[in-house]
Amino acid sequence: MHPIIQFGDYAGTAVFALSGGLAAAQKRLDIAGFVLLAFVTAVGGGTMRDLLLDRGEVFWVREPLYVILGVAPGVLVYFAADRVRSRERAIIWADAVGLAVFAVIGTGIAMQQQVSSLTAVLMGVLTASGGGVLRDVVRNEVPLLLKRELYAVAALAGSAVMVGSTRAADAAPGVAVAGGLLVAFGVRAAGIIWRLHLPAFQPRSD
Amino acid sequence: MHPIIQFGDYAGTAVFALSGGLAAAQKRLDIAGFVLLAFVTAVGGGTMRDLLLDRGEVFWVREPLYVILGVAPGVLVYFAADRVRSRERAIIWADAVGLAVFAVIGTGIAMQQQVSSLTAVLMGVLTASGGGVLRDVVRNEVPLLLKRELYAVAALAGSAVMVGSTRAADAAPGVAVAGGLLVAFGVRAAGIIWRLHLPAFQPRSD
Amino acid sequence: MHPIIQFGDYAGTAVFALSGGLAAAQKRLDIAGFVLLAFVTAVGGGTMRDLLLDRGEVFWVREPLYVILGVAPGVLVYFAADRVRSRERAIIWADAVGLAVFAVIGTGIAMQQQVSSLTAVLMGVLTASGGGVLRDVVRNEVPLLLKRELYAVAALAGSAVMVGSTRAADAAPGVAVAGGLLVAFGVRAAGIIWRLHLPAFQPRSD
Repeated sequence: MHPIIQFGDYAGTAVFALSGGLAAAQKRLDIAGFVLLAFVTAVGGGTMRDLLLDRGEVFWVREPLYVILGVAPGVLVYFAADRVRSRERAIIWADAVGLAVFAVIGTGIAMQQQVSSLTAVLMGVLTASGGGVLRDVVRNEVPLLLKRELYAVAALAGSAVMVGSTRAADAAPGVAVAGGLLVAFGVRAAGIIWRLHLPAFQPRSD
Repeated sequence: MHPIIQFGDYAGTAVFALSGGLAAAQKRLDIAGFVLLAFVTAVGGGTMRDLLLDRGEVFWVREPLYVILGVAPGVLVYFAADRVRSRERAIIWADAVGLAVFAVIGTGIAMQQQVSSLTAVLMGVLTASGGGVLRDVVRNEVPLLLKRELYAVAALAGSAVMVGSTRAADAAPGVAVAGGLLVAFGVRAAGIIWRLHLPAFQPRSD
Repeated sequence: MHPIIQFGDYAGTAVFALSGGLAAAQKRLDIAGFVLLAFVTAVGGGTMRDLLLDRGEVFWVREPLYVILGVAPGVLVYFAADRVRSRERAIIWADAVGLAVFAVIGTGIAMQQQVSSLTAVLMGVLTASGGGVLRDVVRNEVPLLLKRELYAVAALAGSAVMVGSTRAADAAPGVAVAGGLLVAFGVRAAGIIWRLHLPAFQPRSD
């Protein structure tokens, strides 16, 4: 993995864990709850990807650093939730970086296994947004991403650009990854800046 | 796989995805939510079966058709929920076909791995009803099948007939499959027609 | 597996299934719901462990006894909930035994795969408390263990003692297992007897 991607992966893991901790604070859980939600949010997407693609032990089993990065922010939020929350803006942007990196990593891993383009894109979306879905399932909320943000869509766009540029346009791996990162981050950034939301389904009232 | 079973499998996937889309409409999710719930409902049961039986990559990773059949109906419901809902009766019956086919496929896959009869039946039930449980877990509802219909029970009956006729009565595979299909569909049909429900647990009030 | 551990594993499976059945009774589910919750509670933790560690078919696929022990108590509670509930005190203590045994088994399996100490402890906690989390996720409640008891913490303490005594102090396997069992059970027992709870997160009100 390129050092920049690797760094983004670690950073994304930690930021996703922060968001899990903040979700635990909303529910006033105990510290075990903070740790569980932080870890599930941080590694849930990549874990499902590894299971579905039959990649052997999931990625964090041999890499304790991911476990630490996935757990420690939960403890941090438990003891300093106010301070963490006062940086909410920074967390949202760091989360957008994590989203883009996770999408690109998930897509890249799937492409290495020579799956179809559709599946590769799906694995990018799953890696980027699966942890957030699991977080909300565990804490008994309707998954946020299902109701609000341009989130899974950003991962979808970035993953599709990466797969498309590689397979249709024969782009070099570095170019495809950079393109995927930029598009995923850009769509998410547009959603944050202009407060774009996917429209909720409206039943016809007649 | 016999062409009829294969067709039923595809049809069942699409119908289960429709039911996932309708479940998303009840919650007024956005289109990402429709797609997620459709896909989870359509492939969730078979996915858990493949993971538990260690069958390598799960079945849809190499078969984009399942992904399309699991996703497209969610998009369809988002844009035409009223039209889909007006065919509710047809959907319920198509769902019953899917239930029977999924139960038979799950049981058959497990039997190929020479597991015990108990596990084979369990895998039939899981394949047929696991997606619906996941759907309700993700959208934050108590799983419907736990409270109402003769659903898991129909899968159980069909799977048991298939395993029993093969292992106890030495039935030919085609006969066992046909028997399992008929029984699963028959139990479900009886439940639909006569509105049979499993009794809910009643705590003694004394 | 040592016969005593094996016995504890079977007993723990059955007791966890009882707790799943009682959780179904609170929700007034039908008998399919009782069976599902009993089974998920009983084998959920070990199943996730086996999937994450890539141990092939999960442990109960070839061992119908686990399926029976995971399902039968659910049926029992459905038909005799009052009698089961009148033994609540005994169930809580049997559950504490199950917790300790599951933690030690999960940790031991992970150590056999030579994972890091951190991962080994995590697998002990997951094996012991994962089923309870899944139970509450399926029945649409915030996981109990996230809000109340010294539960995951007891598993954590026992697993840590087992890993630490083996790797840092070179303890014989039997000694490490006995130590882990005692500590996990002891922490849980202390929590039961003195009604110790982890403090819930309190947002600062200023």
